[in-house]
Amino acid sequence: MPVNRTCWNCGARTDDDHRVRCDCGEPLWLATDPEAVPGEWPASIESMWDALPLLGVEAPTPPPGVSTAAGGTPLVRADSLDTEGVAVHVKLEGLNPTGSFKDRGTAFGVAAALEAGETRIGTVSHGNMAESVAAHAAATGMDCTVLVPADIADSRLAAIGRYDPRLVRVDGDYGRLYYDALEVGREAGVRFLNSDVPWRVAGQATTAIETLAQFGRGEGEFPDALVIPVSSGGHASATWQAVRTLTAAGLLDEPPKLCFVQAAACAPIAEAFARGDDTVTPAEGGETIAYSIANADPPSGNRALAAARATDGAVVGVDDDAIKRAGEQFAGAGLAVEPSSATTLAAIERLRSDGVLDAGDEVALVATGRGFGDDGVAVETERIDRSALGTLFDAAPGAEGA
Amino acid sequence: MPVNRTCWNCGARTDDDHRVRCDCGEPLWLATDPEAVPGEWPASIESMWDALPLLGVEAPTPPPGVSTAAGGTPLVRADSLDTEGVAVHVKLEGLNPTGSFKDRGTAFGVAAALEAGETRIGTVSHGNMAESVAAHAAATGMDCTVLVPADIADSRLAAIGRYDPRLVRVDGDYGRLYYDALEVGREAGVRFLNSDVPWRVAGQATTAIETLAQFGRGEGEFPDALVIPVSSGGHASATWQAVRTLTAAGLLDEPPKLCFVQAAACAPIAEAFARGDDTVTPAEGGETIAYSIANADPPSGNRALAAARATDGAVVGVDDDAIKRAGEQFAGAGLAVEPSSATTLAAIERLRSDGVLDAGDEVALVATGRGFGDDGVAVETERIDRSALGTLFDAAPGAEGA
Ligand SMILES: [Zn+2]
Ligand SMILES: [Zn+2]
Repeated sequence: MPVNRTCWNCGARTDDDHRVRCDCGEPLWLATDPEAVPGEWPASIESMWDALPLLGVEAPTPPPGVSTAAGGTPLVRADSLDTEGVAVHVKLEGLNPTGSFKDRGTAFGVAAALEAGETRIGTVSHGNMAESVAAHAAATGMDCTVLVPADIADSRLAAIGRYDPRLVRVDGDYGRLYYDALEVGREAGVRFLNSDVPWRVAGQATTAIETLAQFGRGEGEFPDALVIPVSSGGHASATWQAVRTLTAAGLLDEPPKLCFVQAAACAPIAEAFARGDDTVTPAEGGETIAYSIANADPPSGNRALAAARATDGAVVGVDDDAIKRAGEQFAGAGLAVEPSSATTLAAIERLRSDGVLDAGDEVALVATGRGFGDDGVAVETERIDRSALGTLFDAAPGAEGA
Repeated sequence: MPVNRTCWNCGARTDDDHRVRCDCGEPLWLATDPEAVPGEWPASIESMWDALPLLGVEAPTPPPGVSTAAGGTPLVRADSLDTEGVAVHVKLEGLNPTGSFKDRGTAFGVAAALEAGETRIGTVSHGNMAESVAAHAAATGMDCTVLVPADIADSRLAAIGRYDPRLVRVDGDYGRLYYDALEVGREAGVRFLNSDVPWRVAGQATTAIETLAQFGRGEGEFPDALVIPVSSGGHASATWQAVRTLTAAGLLDEPPKLCFVQAAACAPIAEAFARGDDTVTPAEGGETIAYSIANADPPSGNRALAAARATDGAVVGVDDDAIKRAGEQFAGAGLAVEPSSATTLAAIERLRSDGVLDAGDEVALVATGRGFGDDGVAVETERIDRSALGTLFDAAPGAEGA
């Protein structure tokens, strides 16, 4: 499957299926053809494969199994999360097969690799992406190499290891490994599905396509903004790729505002946005409970920055107290999300005060991964004997006046 | 919403919306009207609400939020799980909003309660059902009481407690609490969504409806059997309710074989099936890794038994070694499932040798909940320094000859 790829920054094109970065230093993405996009929104979306035709790329066919099940996640209205007049909808990406949005890009990458006759993939991750790549590889019988930090936690090893990939602990600067692995993989013919490679970005674009289709239900209504956690910038870039193509194809009059959120403790893209810079300067990177998006040197940072600017959106940072509070609010709406996803709700206040969002706006927050209830919230309980069960509701505050 | 309910056993009917058991001692379920069932399978299934019309019950409208997102889970082909000539498909119930099949029954129950003007619900559970009921209650602002064993594990408390229900630890026989809570709840006007109440069973019926619709894709092809873990018998009963109605409505020529699986260590329904009994005798109940289905005195055991017999299915027990092996096989197919779900795959060999399944059959295994990778599988790793990354694939066994 030869696929043209282009540079968002300098416009360069290449047909080299293993090229992922441009000579200008920026990431490449797959070329999109707005004329290849169907003229209508899909009537229903059961998986990402119903959304993918709207991206206008050469789409591979998913192999049977878990890859067919990626995407098609629900978009729900959550009015208890409305903030300062902004109406909140939530895209539940935690309901992907391995529990995160990463399955979309993995499914695309695995399908594309198989169509190209390749049998070996890899990734650099000890989080959601590692689980996703290992699972999809297992389902298709591909060789899979996952590079993890030498000091990886046992719980993470177990979550990834159950799919039985080749697991390699790497000593040294884990951040730089992102680029090293792409190079080593290219030489060895191993496709590394790192977080901003063209195949992953194309698959990831379906989150935005689905969200817009589900919100509008073919009635021509769309959210005013999409609010998304940003780490490498790959997902943010994918969202931009989606809305650019949909606008060019005439399915959108104008793109929604793309708003990206980082943890304040490690917010190089938000800082560049605030300064008015065109390029992202690597951050020092402090500790945050939203550790899964703490990327001090994001490979698609510049592209994410451009996406926010081009759509009248923004990139903001939110502090851990606000993230924690937002996580509790999500749970209060019956939605368990990981701290990195909670950043999206935490950001609304700031986006309102900065004038990016207005009262009356409708926004879709992308909850990229599910939460596990392991974040140490204190739980209160009562205790009674079974023989006293008859007094259960008499004694309850909730039963007063009932 | 007045709903007629009937007894599967003696045929009794009642209009009492709070009645859940018949005078004959058996559980009631909602009356179904095959003539109210649409004449065609749905063209697409995005959630359980697309499947529910095919049950022919008076269906409530889900409140906005998490309840709208229940169901609509993928059915995937997993050929690496094929066993003795039986082709395996898997229904991924772990992709429900709170991670298990329980969301379907909860969503129906919450919607029905709200339509009846009620604001208080409860459940007896410290597992998936508790999380589900607490989450859906939180989303709708309902009062929610969850009765848990006094010695509940902290991790379970946290998983349930994040949705902030009223949590009550109960000392005494937790098994009997199932009935006590229904009675106390009825007196206090609190709807207990226990595992075999009519509302839960009706919602749960959508798993089977979806599976049949997704398998057939409107082409008139259906699986030969559905294989489902059984605990209380509520889910098993729901599956029977679904296939009875679909057959009566003419959407199925004959029901698929319903095969239910227990952990051998606590298998009262399987034992009654093997003995040829019509009623289930409570078991002693030993330890098993599939603890979430270890129900020694299942409230819908007799109904599950009848369902298996009426469809030429079976009820079998599988031991922990087989469950563990099956869990690893699921992971090898990229599917992380909890041990109780792994029982379904473990059962195929037995169902083949008992002549319930034949070579060439196609079966759908219902994986009721997701796994967490915390079951202590040993994980092997390699270790290298980043500076040596260039040797990564030379050194790899998988790279030989590449
Ligand atoms: Zn360039
Ligand atoms: Zn009866």
